[in-house]
Amino acid sequence: MATTETDPRTIDPNLGAQIVADAREHVLYSWSVQSAINPIPVAGAEGRHFWDYDGKRYLDFASQLVNVNIGHQHPKIIQAIKDQADKLCTIGPPMANESRSQLGRMLAEVTPGDLSVSFFTNGGTEANENAVKLARLVTGRHKIIARYRSYHGATHGAVTLTGDPRRWAVEPGMAGVVRAFDPYTYRCPAGHPDPCPVCSGAPHLEEILAYEGAHTVAAIILETVTGTNGIIVPPDGYLQSVREVCDRHGILLILDEVMAGFGRTGKWFACEHWDVVPDILCVAKGINSGYVPLGAMIARGEIIDQVRDRFFPGGLTYAGHPLACASAVASIEAFREEGVVENAAAMGDYFREALGRLQERHPSIGEVRGLGCFWGIELVRDRETKEMLVPFNASGEAAAPVSRVAKAALERGLYLMTHWNVVMVVPPLTITREEAEEGIAILDDVLAIADEYYQE
Amino acid sequence: MATTETDPRTIDPNLGAQIVADAREHVLYSWSVQSAINPIPVAGAEGRHFWDYDGKRYLDFASQLVNVNIGHQHPKIIQAIKDQADKLCTIGPPMANESRSQLGRMLAEVTPGDLSVSFFTNGGTEANENAVKLARLVTGRHKIIARYRSYHGATHGAVTLTGDPRRWAVEPGMAGVVRAFDPYTYRCPAGHPDPCPVCSGAPHLEEILAYEGAHTVAAIILETVTGTNGIIVPPDGYLQSVREVCDRHGILLILDEVMAGFGRTGKWFACEHWDVVPDILCVAKGINSGYVPLGAMIARGEIIDQVRDRFFPGGLTYAGHPLACASAVASIEAFREEGVVENAAAMGDYFREALGRLQERHPSIGEVRGLGCFWGIELVRDRETKEMLVPFNASGEAAAPVSRVAKAALERGLYLMTHWNVVMVVPPLTITREEAEEGIAILDDVLAIADEYYQE
Ligand SMILES: Cc1ncc(COP(=O)(O)O)c(C=O)c1O
Ligand SMILES: Cc1ncc(COP(=O)(O)O)c(C=O)c1O
Repeated sequence: MATTETDPRTIDPNLGAQIVADAREHVLYSWSVQSAINPIPVAGAEGRHFWDYDGKRYLDFASQLVNVNIGHQHPKIIQAIKDQADKLCTIGPPMANESRSQLGRMLAEVTPGDLSVSFFTNGGTEANENAVKLARLVTGRHKIIARYRSYHGATHGAVTLTGDPRRWAVEPGMAGVVRAFDPYTYRCPAGHPDPCPVCSGAPHLEEILAYEGAHTVAAIILETVTGTNGIIVPPDGYLQSVREVCDRHGILLILDEVMAGFGRTGKWFACEHWDVVPDILCVAKGINSGYVPLGAMIARGEIIDQVRDRFFPGGLTYAGHPLACASAVASIEAFREEGVVENAAAMGDYFREALGRLQERHPSIGEVRGLGCFWGIELVRDRETKEMLVPFNASGEAAAPVSRVAKAALERGLYLMTHWNVVMVVPPLTITREEAEEGIAILDDVLAIADEYYQE
Repeated sequence: MATTETDPRTIDPNLGAQIVADAREHVLYSWSVQSAINPIPVAGAEGRHFWDYDGKRYLDFASQLVNVNIGHQHPKIIQAIKDQADKLCTIGPPMANESRSQLGRMLAEVTPGDLSVSFFTNGGTEANENAVKLARLVTGRHKIIARYRSYHGATHGAVTLTGDPRRWAVEPGMAGVVRAFDPYTYRCPAGHPDPCPVCSGAPHLEEILAYEGAHTVAAIILETVTGTNGIIVPPDGYLQSVREVCDRHGILLILDEVMAGFGRTGKWFACEHWDVVPDILCVAKGINSGYVPLGAMIARGEIIDQVRDRFFPGGLTYAGHPLACASAVASIEAFREEGVVENAAAMGDYFREALGRLQERHPSIGEVRGLGCFWGIELVRDRETKEMLVPFNASGEAAAPVSRVAKAALERGLYLMTHWNVVMVVPPLTITREEAEEGIAILDDVLAIADEYYQE
């Protein structure tokens, strides 16, 4: 499992400064206020670390955007990219290509059930966009049910499926999207009686379907385990009950495992924790750790059979890109050879225990939740009232309690992803026990900042 | 300019058959009826050629999907990909990265006017989606004017901007899109009096704006030279007059040069033929010939200044991907070093003359039009009535006259892109005179098939 940690730092502060200056002048940054960007110029990376031009080294507890599942600069994937580059960098989607066919076959193997036909995309957003197209084509119905605490991407359709405020910027969005609540048991929208009608899945959905007309609904799209919006693991039984509701009404189940898939939760796909097979599975990120842009919408053979004689409006010049597919083939092989998913599961036990200990020591930790290498620490001002340390959709000064935590961690060489009042612990799945302990120790230190805001 | 043509064919028909069988079983093909796909298994490619596992060699007169502008397997780009793979395959968009900053700077250099800030995407679709977001953010207005004979991509927003029938599959689309006619002088929707109110730009747009309320329109998006929908070159004066209308009403001009950009028309960008600078330029394809998925939305500095203190809702895990950016940097350098754009312009003179000669010999050629390495041959049953050889949006039997032409060409080793009644001549910009002549000679032969349908 272990990757040898060499330390080939490129110390060249002038170059670093030049790169940042060019970025400020010529690159538009996403989800950002342009005048406030202050990016780290990254000189190199390896395993669970990256470093800048001052030689400062960071432990990547975010896997960048939760995509570098195998860690940085894995030699086998690099070699596959170089070999494929020598052979054939690109070829159009109407052709057949060895790495594309091979990846199609491997995805049928590693995904659960009869998921067996892939439409290849450049990333997660396009996988979701195409899942919606396919669901509408197959069912002849129009509505799509999506949840509030979800992120499904940024193009017009995908951002409409997205429940979080990033959707507001482009509304009115795609027609026919219906919103459902999440199984967010820590803050149950129904006040969470037991059994909660929302968190248990079926009752909430059945109520929505009664009002919407089940026969008008093409699909339900869910992040199997919610990622960006707080790492929300559904209670046992939830996903099974959603699957049953779908089956009862001829509605397709689309699982967005762009973030949760490819070992992130300690199984190849998160849905395997509950033995549920979706009709369409959307993946990206961990499929090849983002070494080359790639995503896929993977459908059950039976679903595709229903549209064999129809025209699929997929588009996409780079669908099934040889370089991207070759890197994914190598990554899946490396996952198998090196037991990457098994390591994620084993580290999950460690994180459960270690983050539990942090919760005992830090009053500001309201809840710790997760699976595998996919953890969220929800910070509060008061455990009783559960008042959020940073309010929903806050930015600037209101977000300071958590941005101060992230900044302090960064200073100590720990790169963290945060989302309002949630700090995420989402390192590469190849992380070692020592590296995990190092990161947790820094977290332990910097959470003292969050505790300062705790009301007693 | 010339690339040495070696012939490293991989003859292995069994492997070819296996690749096709896997593709049929595991890969969903776009814009296709799945049961009818019969892809060529591509074993390798170089320059203007690719070959299959039977050793059959094809002259690529389509540049795949009009994206392999520099030709296949250019050694400099391959080397840049391999070098960057060794250095740093991927890093998240919040970071700064040398190849990303460098490409941002180079795009500011090669694009006209003060276009200087890039938002990097995985392809053309996402560039257009983000151009719309930016235009709405800057202007605070909602409507976007787009034309009928356009293709802007396949996600929900981009396919709504798309005027052609591929949009129908996902309607109702994005709100706020208003449709305009094209400067399609060969079939002028207004019957084309001279000067035509549509083909001259301003009068048609001003009429639409009067009815829509100019103050409600954020942007006009155009393919500078229409690609897929028939290679339509606007008359001189058209683009200037559109620019003036935009300026008069504070409307942004978005030019989609995903297909027309990067030398395709014999200039770096098609808008340079008419000395017009858009507010936002969208590119992909030729930016790196698709060696790694990449697109960019490039805005004028002045436009970005208006949103410096705002949050840009771009999204996109792989925005500014190092491998993609490094390949584009190398490609732009190769364009400069090898005079790729100059060759496209020179070959444009050849194609104008050679296709003109074909028109004299083949009654079925109604019109030949284009620039650089971007040509369309419009086929008709009758030059007088201009009845199309294949009707608008036809498929199957009705499309046979042109699909027979393409099939016959393929048998003779010429790969052509066709669109209803238009045969496209869109080879890599590095094409040699000999290769062009070879392709034109095959075209000359197979157009006899089209002539069979000609009514006399
Ligand atoms: C669950 C989920 N779906 C979709 C996406 C969008 O993927 P991409 O950015 O590759 O388009 C993301 C990205 O963060 C995601 O987390
Ligand atoms: C003019 C134009 N815009 C946008 C696109 C979409 O680009 P992509 O397929 O890379 O998303 C295309 C693709 O053919 C195009 O020709």
